[in-house]
Amino acid sequence: EKNFFLLAGPCAIEGEAMAMQIAETVTGIADRLKIPYIFKGSFKKANRSRVDSFTGIGDEKALRILKKVSEHFGVPTVTDIHEIDDAAMAAEYVDVLQIPAFLVRQTDLVVAAANTGKVVNLKKGQFMSPESMKHAVAKVTDSGNSQVLITDRGTMFGYQDLIVDFRGVPVMKQFAPVVLDVTHSLQQPNQASGVTGGRPELIETIARAGIATGVDGIFIETHFDPASAKSDGANMLPLDQLERLLTRLTALRQTVNDF
Amino acid sequence: EKNFFLLAGPCAIEGEAMAMQIAETVTGIADRLKIPYIFKGSFKKANRSRVDSFTGIGDEKALRILKKVSEHFGVPTVTDIHEIDDAAMAAEYVDVLQIPAFLVRQTDLVVAAANTGKVVNLKKGQFMSPESMKHAVAKVTDSGNSQVLITDRGTMFGYQDLIVDFRGVPVMKQFAPVVLDVTHSLQQPNQASGVTGGRPELIETIARAGIATGVDGIFIETHFDPASAKSDGANMLPLDQLERLLTRLTALRQTVNDF
Amino acid sequence: EKNFFLLAGPCAIEGEAMAMQIAETVTGIADRLKIPYIFKGSFKKANRSRVDSFTGIGDEKALRILKKVSEHFGVPTVTDIHEIDDAAMAAEYVDVLQIPAFLVRQTDLVVAAANTGKVVNLKKGQFMSPESMKHAVAKVTDSGNSQVLITDRGTMFGYQDLIVDFRGVPVMKQFAPVVLDVTHSLQQPNQASGVTGGRPELIETIARAGIATGVDGIFIETHFDPASAKSDGANMLPLDQLERLLTRLTALRQTVNDF
Amino acid sequence: EKNFFLLAGPCAIEGEAMAMQIAETVTGIADRLKIPYIFKGSFKKANRSRVDSFTGIGDEKALRILKKVSEHFGVPTVTDIHEIDDAAMAAEYVDVLQIPAFLVRQTDLVVAAANTGKVVNLKKGQFMSPESMKHAVAKVTDSGNSQVLITDRGTMFGYQDLIVDFRGVPVMKQFAPVVLDVTHSLQQPNQASGVTGGRPELIETIARAGIATGVDGIFIETHFDPASAKSDGANMLPLDQLERLLTRLTALRQTVNDF
Repeated sequence: EKNFFLLAGPCAIEGEAMAMQIAETVTGIADRLKIPYIFKGSFKKANRSRVDSFTGIGDEKALRILKKVSEHFGVPTVTDIHEIDDAAMAAEYVDVLQIPAFLVRQTDLVVAAANTGKVVNLKKGQFMSPESMKHAVAKVTDSGNSQVLITDRGTMFGYQDLIVDFRGVPVMKQFAPVVLDVTHSLQQPNQASGVTGGRPELIETIARAGIATGVDGIFIETHFDPASAKSDGANMLPLDQLERLLTRLTALRQTVNDF
Repeated sequence: EKNFFLLAGPCAIEGEAMAMQIAETVTGIADRLKIPYIFKGSFKKANRSRVDSFTGIGDEKALRILKKVSEHFGVPTVTDIHEIDDAAMAAEYVDVLQIPAFLVRQTDLVVAAANTGKVVNLKKGQFMSPESMKHAVAKVTDSGNSQVLITDRGTMFGYQDLIVDFRGVPVMKQFAPVVLDVTHSLQQPNQASGVTGGRPELIETIARAGIATGVDGIFIETHFDPASAKSDGANMLPLDQLERLLTRLTALRQTVNDF
Repeated sequence: EKNFFLLAGPCAIEGEAMAMQIAETVTGIADRLKIPYIFKGSFKKANRSRVDSFTGIGDEKALRILKKVSEHFGVPTVTDIHEIDDAAMAAEYVDVLQIPAFLVRQTDLVVAAANTGKVVNLKKGQFMSPESMKHAVAKVTDSGNSQVLITDRGTMFGYQDLIVDFRGVPVMKQFAPVVLDVTHSLQQPNQASGVTGGRPELIETIARAGIATGVDGIFIETHFDPASAKSDGANMLPLDQLERLLTRLTALRQTVNDF
Repeated sequence: EKNFFLLAGPCAIEGEAMAMQIAETVTGIADRLKIPYIFKGSFKKANRSRVDSFTGIGDEKALRILKKVSEHFGVPTVTDIHEIDDAAMAAEYVDVLQIPAFLVRQTDLVVAAANTGKVVNLKKGQFMSPESMKHAVAKVTDSGNSQVLITDRGTMFGYQDLIVDFRGVPVMKQFAPVVLDVTHSLQQPNQASGVTGGRPELIETIARAGIATGVDGIFIETHFDPASAKSDGANMLPLDQLERLLTRLTALRQTVNDF
């Protein structure tokens, strides 16, 4: 029976060399484990805590790198969009358009993404219930696009913490395939420093719970050296830990497939 | 000593007649109570729960009505923007550009608003701590615009409820003048119906606590007949209850002014 | 018109001298401001975070001090109970029996307190809604005792924070007179150290909001030197700040009384 | 490698026949699946929402039934205690003394349980962080009793909901073996009716996530006919669904054992 699928890559496209290296490594692992793989990279970081945070290397430049990854490794790609005009632009380069969690209530943006005909990946707002994602999905399908995913990246718990509510997995699977974003789910937002913290040592714990509860896909931000990454360094998985993690998740998935 | 200021008006500009009527009524009350008044109205509703929710009567048409209100009654106006391009457009018609709570982390939008030179009213995200608004304010001031307000509209508490954390008032006053949005703070989001609920019977309770804790301004959505309004009907204050509320808040403010 | 009432005193009865000194100071202030006053002191601290925390000077010894305070200054007294057997014992010495927040769902304890015929002060559990306090109050009144108070001491918000939900004030006033515990409401529980933290600089903010929203009473733990207190030092109000606070609250109350 | 252990039985001991029937059924399943089994039943329900809720059939009567179950089926038993005096009494009949979640901060009660020499099962308070359970465990071990378990039964999320935070599993395993209470974790407290609700259709979801994240034990309340049970009917698992659930959890556990 079939394995879960994987959205993985660096938080932001920092340059061509790093994108190609990460894609090569992850493609190799995914091939060995028979995991359908979608390369992930942001062409722009638009919602940083502070104005002096890194926001990208240039939109078109980053998008062209995504296209090159796709062609070179034969994998689909996903990127996130923040403005209505981004939808048509990004759709020329990638296969999946992702709506960030903070923006999933912006009807015009969701509809613009839907209208490209690309797959739309809706991040569940940290302030939304699993049940309420039904309405977000309907904005895509009512636009005539039936290709939609929901990605859970945790729910606000107090000011500086997020919890994944696994009760939401079967609830949201009624609306669309469900992906668990295991790296952002472990963020610790609203830190006094203005830099989001994280608990990456718990990635495997959260990912295992996701597979056990039946998620269809796993989303992981990964980097050769998270500490040197230009964004989200606190949460990414070191790339050399990825194969062990995916091997275990594949084993769990096979067990669940037999239920 | 000086009174609090007031941002008030309908949720959405539904037409010229209703805007002028509401403005006339509120202007009269504000004059009697010596409350500096800013007329509020959305020219577009972009973040509805469902795709079939009312979104507006046309952007320019609504903005022209805001301009007319301003000229006719001699009051400044405020409206909310959702896309970068909205900033320059709306700035031609209104005095205060408001960043919606869900969008307050979108750097490009905040900077675009700041660059118009207009006053920027930052709604505190329902997912943000009072302390973290320091960074949002800095995005405006670092852009060379020192005219910024923070408006609290409650903080997520579970999936279907919001609480106002009044500890945040003195914290956020360190960054900018603080406004309490007493109608949205009483919303009940993520309802199964896809329509946000509310507890408008608690408007006075929340508003009193705001004045007592030292907020600089009060934000109220009001309508002649909330039940017939095209958006946020569950939360708006019936216009005929406004004067009694503002009279009480003015009395409380005078007491606090003496401290 | 009448002022709010006050429950105040040290967290724990550490000895006779400190109890008498605090009672004398607070009695003087309360007389000047015409605030009905109930002296508060715990005879035992039973729910400490750690086994090595201070738990008291001996039950009967502490209760006798409460009795002496009552007789000497002509004020009623309140203490908290933790076991069924405490109810009858404490009732011989004090006027108000308080049920701690963690214990307010313990039916037998609440009924034992009710059966003494003393006033019962029910702390709202940090895990309870204002509406659910209706059932706690009913446990007292169904036992034939109509003298019951509800005291709010904040509601859990994430693991390490509490928020006061002022919407609960009018809700709970339907069931019984409502007191706001301004010192415990500012606790920061579950700290890594095992010692509860606090934000005592916000006591006035929270207390003002309470009076403005119509609470009937204020609960304050106070000490000559909170830093040297044997429990809850992080949250108590320094006694020399009490009069200024109560003077302001009295002014606010007079304003609200005129509504 | 070894399987998880199971604490299971009815919420309350309603009578001998039902206890023996449930014990027989569960013992049979546990034997087939090689699951170490501890029979669970409350001899008293002390923390009901309302005074008219069912509280038990008589303490000693219920405890004698627990003893009979233990002797007849050769299984250890667990029951929860609410007052200090309960500890020694219950210790004469059962093998594991459980401290309810609301009471886990009551030092005297925890120490009384520890002093019996029995295994102490500490429920994590719905208001406590996983990290803070370190101090609760220390109250047992500092009393000279090293036999202690931690059981997670969810964490308050808003007023009427609980979420299980699976990040807590590896955290709490540093302190003691960790059990997941899959039925109480799905409660919906503080309902307007005064009767706690639940989402029993999610029991398998939550239980799978627990095994996948490495819990040592599973706690399940089960009943032949939950709808007719005298307490917690909204949450118990129908007994005829137990074997399928435990079979799946055993398969997941075997997968995890290989990691």
